[in-house]
Amino acid sequence: MAYYIAGIDLGGTKIASALLDTELKVLKSEAVMTRVEAGPEGVVEQMAQEVQSLMAGIDKEALLGIGVACAGIIQPRTGKVLASPNLKWQGVPLGDMLSQRLGYPVYVNNDVNMAALGELHFGSARGAQQMVCVFVGTGIGSGIVINGHLYEGTCGLAGEAGHMTIEVNGPPCGCGNVGCWEALASGTGMARQARRAIERGEDSLLKELCGGDLDQLRVEMIAEADAKGDSLSQRLLIETGEYLGVGLANIANMLNPELIVLGGGVIRGVPKLFDLAEISMRRRAWKQASDCLRLVKARFGREAGVIGAAVLVKLAGQT
Amino acid sequence: MAYYIAGIDLGGTKIASALLDTELKVLKSEAVMTRVEAGPEGVVEQMAQEVQSLMAGIDKEALLGIGVACAGIIQPRTGKVLASPNLKWQGVPLGDMLSQRLGYPVYVNNDVNMAALGELHFGSARGAQQMVCVFVGTGIGSGIVINGHLYEGTCGLAGEAGHMTIEVNGPPCGCGNVGCWEALASGTGMARQARRAIERGEDSLLKELCGGDLDQLRVEMIAEADAKGDSLSQRLLIETGEYLGVGLANIANMLNPELIVLGGGVIRGVPKLFDLAEISMRRRAWKQASDCLRLVKARFGREAGVIGAAVLVKLAGQT
Repeated sequence: MAYYIAGIDLGGTKIASALLDTELKVLKSEAVMTRVEAGPEGVVEQMAQEVQSLMAGIDKEALLGIGVACAGIIQPRTGKVLASPNLKWQGVPLGDMLSQRLGYPVYVNNDVNMAALGELHFGSARGAQQMVCVFVGTGIGSGIVINGHLYEGTCGLAGEAGHMTIEVNGPPCGCGNVGCWEALASGTGMARQARRAIERGEDSLLKELCGGDLDQLRVEMIAEADAKGDSLSQRLLIETGEYLGVGLANIANMLNPELIVLGGGVIRGVPKLFDLAEISMRRRAWKQASDCLRLVKARFGREAGVIGAAVLVKLAGQT
Repeated sequence: MAYYIAGIDLGGTKIASALLDTELKVLKSEAVMTRVEAGPEGVVEQMAQEVQSLMAGIDKEALLGIGVACAGIIQPRTGKVLASPNLKWQGVPLGDMLSQRLGYPVYVNNDVNMAALGELHFGSARGAQQMVCVFVGTGIGSGIVINGHLYEGTCGLAGEAGHMTIEVNGPPCGCGNVGCWEALASGTGMARQARRAIERGEDSLLKELCGGDLDQLRVEMIAEADAKGDSLSQRLLIETGEYLGVGLANIANMLNPELIVLGGGVIRGVPKLFDLAEISMRRRAWKQASDCLRLVKARFGREAGVIGAAVLVKLAGQT
């Protein structure tokens, strides 16, 4: 009999799910908007229906388990969501709830850790022993691999690289601190800088590209304006690349990994940032740490979460 | 028969050595100035004579081995000193040289890693699984423990926490980068700030305490002036405590350890900095990471190196 794994990427905006074979090939995938307002029971019911829809026409016994990648602070051992600001959840026993609803084993972990696991086992970091995956999107998250295994820290919180302070008196961050890496080098950071410059009266193609509404500004527009010679966009990318490199150099100096995998929506949207970040990182890191470090692009894009979630089910089956 | 271990702390200024029993109690200790100008052969000869002097009257067979804690970049597996700016060494096979000279097994590792090992096995961090030791002196170094074992990184360089950038456009650091943690929060950073303020004309007790020669400024003088109400010294300590906390919060957010051990000459010289650093760290770190983290003082002071070096010999005997 052929066996299957279900992977779910649960975020505050949407629930992406996929059915994979045991080689982690995605066979079917689907996505629905998350009904955050329906509370944990409602969202678990959405997830259950997604899995049942993916399993249509497949023997119920053939599903090995369900992996859930969830934004927030997760206790992997119990499958409990300790805190997820995007879902407005605190202390939700997600693993138990979904497992009781469907009768399959359910494994829950942080979405960034899951994406790191996916890169480690099936992506750009195969075989790496000391590795850090950095994902740059609305914020910056990272997953740390030590001696070939995911390192989760004392209470599952390791890898909050986005909240390293890189500028003591820098701009405020959503976390309550100031000068965090993600306040300076994420998509949110770039958007804030762009808005500030335009509000100060600087002329830029970006105004036109976002139809005059800076709330609609997306990172792809900055890439487009940069390609057309827009000076604000060019400056934004140089500054962001510099800031990205600062945080990467901090990781290199602190953890001396053999590999850093850089991915996420901002890097996919503006491929040039990868090179700018590498130049800055290599200039700032200890030469010896830089010499034994490779910086590579993430293999997986939007599907990183569901694939990483499925890896967790597969690894659980092996132990 | 009673057995012994020799521990040597090899620095650019002095060679401290000790004879310990297998419970790591220091039985005898001595120190000589390092004759850096005599080159590796000369320094190895100094170390050999130290060991022979410690072993006077003791059966040659009773020495289990020699541990050497060395400042610089070490390859622990081979006992090679890849680079030690203080000793002006590059690629020196220190372990082999000393072992051939004396006929004992020799284990070499970085001095900060050794001090972390000492705290882990016999000091303030006994039994810790996820732990970081931070030593604040002329610079800032750290040793990382993951799952109860020293984490050395891909090429033995992990723990260069002192060279995390915490201020993108901060003051220059000896490493060639700018805004490093140790450029802002170490003894060197405090001395630079004090000098700058005094050269700008600010009045301070520090001038008197160092006999008018700012090159003689020591951290204990800042503590003394602070106790007497000197406003420059008070400000220096508040700023340094703030900067120390920034780097500690970065470590907490990145590695989510259960324990950070804080030690080194600057913390011993100005005990108040420990509390100031903790306040700053707890204000800046993620609440959840802070909640599961204890910050404690290092148990060992100047003798941390020789004790850590001896731990390495003891651990080698157990495997």
